[in-house]
Amino acid sequence: MRATLLHQAGDVRVEDVPDPKIQQPTDAVVRIVLGCVCGSDLWPYKSQPLTDTPRQMGHEFIGVVEETGTQVRGVQVGDVVVAPFTYSDGTCEYCRQGLHTSCRHGGPWGVGGVDGGQGQAARVPYADGTLVKLPVTEGSELLPDLLTLSDVLCTGYHAARTAGVRAGESVTVIGDGAVGLSAVIAAKLLGAERIILMGRHAQRTDLGREFGATDVVAARGQDGVDAVRELTAGHGTERVLECVGLKDALVQSAGVVRDGGVISRVGAPQYPEVPFGFPEFLRNITLTGGVAPARAYIEELLPHILSGEIRPGRVFDRTVPLAQVAEGYRLMNDREALKVIVRP
Amino acid sequence: MRATLLHQAGDVRVEDVPDPKIQQPTDAVVRIVLGCVCGSDLWPYKSQPLTDTPRQMGHEFIGVVEETGTQVRGVQVGDVVVAPFTYSDGTCEYCRQGLHTSCRHGGPWGVGGVDGGQGQAARVPYADGTLVKLPVTEGSELLPDLLTLSDVLCTGYHAARTAGVRAGESVTVIGDGAVGLSAVIAAKLLGAERIILMGRHAQRTDLGREFGATDVVAARGQDGVDAVRELTAGHGTERVLECVGLKDALVQSAGVVRDGGVISRVGAPQYPEVPFGFPEFLRNITLTGGVAPARAYIEELLPHILSGEIRPGRVFDRTVPLAQVAEGYRLMNDREALKVIVRP
Repeated sequence: MRATLLHQAGDVRVEDVPDPKIQQPTDAVVRIVLGCVCGSDLWPYKSQPLTDTPRQMGHEFIGVVEETGTQVRGVQVGDVVVAPFTYSDGTCEYCRQGLHTSCRHGGPWGVGGVDGGQGQAARVPYADGTLVKLPVTEGSELLPDLLTLSDVLCTGYHAARTAGVRAGESVTVIGDGAVGLSAVIAAKLLGAERIILMGRHAQRTDLGREFGATDVVAARGQDGVDAVRELTAGHGTERVLECVGLKDALVQSAGVVRDGGVISRVGAPQYPEVPFGFPEFLRNITLTGGVAPARAYIEELLPHILSGEIRPGRVFDRTVPLAQVAEGYRLMNDREALKVIVRP
Repeated sequence: MRATLLHQAGDVRVEDVPDPKIQQPTDAVVRIVLGCVCGSDLWPYKSQPLTDTPRQMGHEFIGVVEETGTQVRGVQVGDVVVAPFTYSDGTCEYCRQGLHTSCRHGGPWGVGGVDGGQGQAARVPYADGTLVKLPVTEGSELLPDLLTLSDVLCTGYHAARTAGVRAGESVTVIGDGAVGLSAVIAAKLLGAERIILMGRHAQRTDLGREFGATDVVAARGQDGVDAVRELTAGHGTERVLECVGLKDALVQSAGVVRDGGVISRVGAPQYPEVPFGFPEFLRNITLTGGVAPARAYIEELLPHILSGEIRPGRVFDRTVPLAQVAEGYRLMNDREALKVIVRP
């Protein structure tokens, strides 16, 4: 089959790889009908040194089950399914508590003999624990919305949930990428009354307003902090959803959070240390969040998509065929596209 | 009156300072009957450069109200009262939500014309918001226990509360100082089933066992982490109460916390940055805590002391008269005493 491989920074190719086969009785093989490029794919795309063992890229996909191992019970051949961005057994103590990213047998796509999501098909380990059946056909117009259940929508939701967003509260979302915009959707779902979106790309923040942002602050750094404080009687907001992953965004988060408030980080950290010393201690600031256990949220979010209440698929503004996936990376890396669908 | 002043590192003296007087109609003047030395007093005791304006030391005291301003309603002359380690107005939005340390008009003892707690008397700003009347006489044997409501007991309780300790859970307490031992009491009050105390001073950890610690780990660093993981089937504990304030203790906290768990820090940070980057992100570790709003917890904890259910005053192992306060500092700094009472 054809799949996306990253050989080194800037060098993404579609090449032949072995067709996926059932290896374990808990496996399924899924023909991928829709994948996409993630903001986190851009980190290796920017920095990966040349390698002889290029990684299969992609960790978000919707597909159709083609074959199942003998122990698979939850999905059947022909089912349309969505895969969260890590696979997980669904039975260990961490999965049972909803922390599938810490699954004892789980892991990421694209390494250790597991396929990536930007290809024609994938072997899915622990199919019962990993996949969620979608009540749609593979031709459904909802597919892009449903694809966000793989990662961005659940990641934004993880930010809002771990931050403890409750009805009537004020929330700042830092970052106008696909995760930030998904966090706006999530904060609104949880009843936030005021949602301040910090981002400086007007097209993106305009979409953020449509998703539920009540205010947009384009300024960054201290100016941005001052602007948020001005909007909140000097206090800042109880919850801050940090959807960037850079240290500056954390400093900004601390600047806009209310004393006693919570910052949830879901942007993959590009820093080794968090600048939270004595001042943040005196203000009783909590730092939470982390990699989102997307699997834990899919069933909960699915009805909101099926009913049309939310349309998270609007974060996709370009589609490329698999053969042109390199162009998809370029578009996102050059900020010409917000998030790109890859159609095998 | 006589009060404790720190002139520079290692140079603590008892000297004459002006008698406290009512300055605002919301003030009270309190004659101090019991004060003490705090672990946090040792930071300036170790490091303070020589100054012409020595600070009045001490922020924990029980006293008798001697005079009240015209607007004071909550306490009367003759009342025995305890003061939390910051004063606060009791009426602002932060005080109303229980975050008295962020009070709009509050502040620390010993600066800005406010007296310290290691002296014969103190002017108490916002007496109604700050002081809590104790239903005992100044001769009560419970006074040392009640004095812990000023700081250490409430600080340990803040750690346990913000960490979200619930009945049946496992908790690691890092640090066998007076705050760590108070955190053990707090974790037990909240129903923790297993309380692992990390500390290497046998006398202190023995007291920790009496307070409710079910296990003691004397090893530090990776050995200590390994020991806690061995006690917890490899997982670590859901909650970690960090009662030291050093970076090593944070690293140790991350080592012993379960994936998805919470570290609450109540040791005053002696570091500018927290070493929580990508690994802690992948594990969904939460960092919470901060300076304890002691005032928020006093009424809640008081009945447990009055009933004799907890005896937090056992952390005091020495008493010095005010004139010998310098010896009290030396005893604690040299670890010859756990916590020292100062009797004016």
